[in-house]
Amino acid sequence: MTEVTNGVNVQALLEAREALKAAPEAAQFTWRASAKWQGGVHSTMKVRSFFGLGEEQGHNDEWSFEADHPEVFAAEDNGITPIEYLLVGLASCLTGGIASIAENRGIQLRSVESTVEGAHDIRGILGADSDVRNGFDDIKVTFTIDADASKQEIEALVAQSQKRSAVFDALSNPTNITVEVA
Amino acid sequence: MTEVTNGVNVQALLEAREALKAAPEAAQFTWRASAKWQGGVHSTMKVRSFFGLGEEQGHNDEWSFEADHPEVFAAEDNGITPIEYLLVGLASCLTGGIASIAENRGIQLRSVESTVEGAHDIRGILGADSDVRNGFDDIKVTFTIDADASKQEIEALVAQSQKRSAVFDALSNPTNITVEVA
Repeated sequence: MTEVTNGVNVQALLEAREALKAAPEAAQFTWRASAKWQGGVHSTMKVRSFFGLGEEQGHNDEWSFEADHPEVFAAEDNGITPIEYLLVGLASCLTGGIASIAENRGIQLRSVESTVEGAHDIRGILGADSDVRNGFDDIKVTFTIDADASKQEIEALVAQSQKRSAVFDALSNPTNITVEVA
Repeated sequence: MTEVTNGVNVQALLEAREALKAAPEAAQFTWRASAKWQGGVHSTMKVRSFFGLGEEQGHNDEWSFEADHPEVFAAEDNGITPIEYLLVGLASCLTGGIASIAENRGIQLRSVESTVEGAHDIRGILGADSDVRNGFDDIKVTFTIDADASKQEIEALVAQSQKRSAVFDALSNPTNITVEVA
């Protein structure tokens, strides 16, 4: 076996795959965020607990996030714009996937950097043109990777990461969202 | 006119809507995030610059975000899981929308809190079952709102916020994503 030290415990993931094949109910996770309005379009979100492997789980720390609109939208810029959080999620999901797949394939990574750009016609959210959608027109991700591998092997890593990415799927395919008032 | 102080400059947004009807090229925004792999499935994302109104723009501060997998995934839990960032974005987008629409309708808000839950069968990302998708099965948002308004008016606020939400659209409808290696 090739010894690679990208720092991903691939053996544990392969064991989890086998274990969850036999116990699909343990594979049902629920991720959560809570939000609190701070005035204007500024809000603070907290993330800590989640459910999975049949019981309540949690991150070791509670993480807190600020969202607002920038000053060009006549707001106070107390945090990033909500839609930018989707780009943060996409970049991190693909990056983690690349590291996991590289570990599994015996490819030593030295650096993985990326830029994610989301094109957005804001006439949609402003209600200026009903033919313009509210979300991104499209998203472009560009990776720069230094690794003990050929260009082809690196491209194959990136392709496989997309194929197994939770966030790539969540943004490229529809998900049903229910919104209720308690 | 009703004077409401939710802190949203609705007049500026209404003026922007009219201005951008006449200048659609100024409405073309590009949001950006950059990411750097930190080892394992841990990565750090930075958000600062964006493009819009025909020129480079920026947040006043550079914001930094950590993503990792939790310890139950045999990782180091140095940040939230990438897919959780989507819930942060959704909660903040709907919350900001509610505040903006309330301001426009003359409804004084006292508090807006929400919980977002994303159901996720992780057999997809683990490759344990090819019939299971990688992303969320579904997402549920629950708002608790205290405002000078009837239950019906509050429900109408929440419904209109969904209709104009960039993130709600981005998660409930497909977006084309291109991934390249530089």
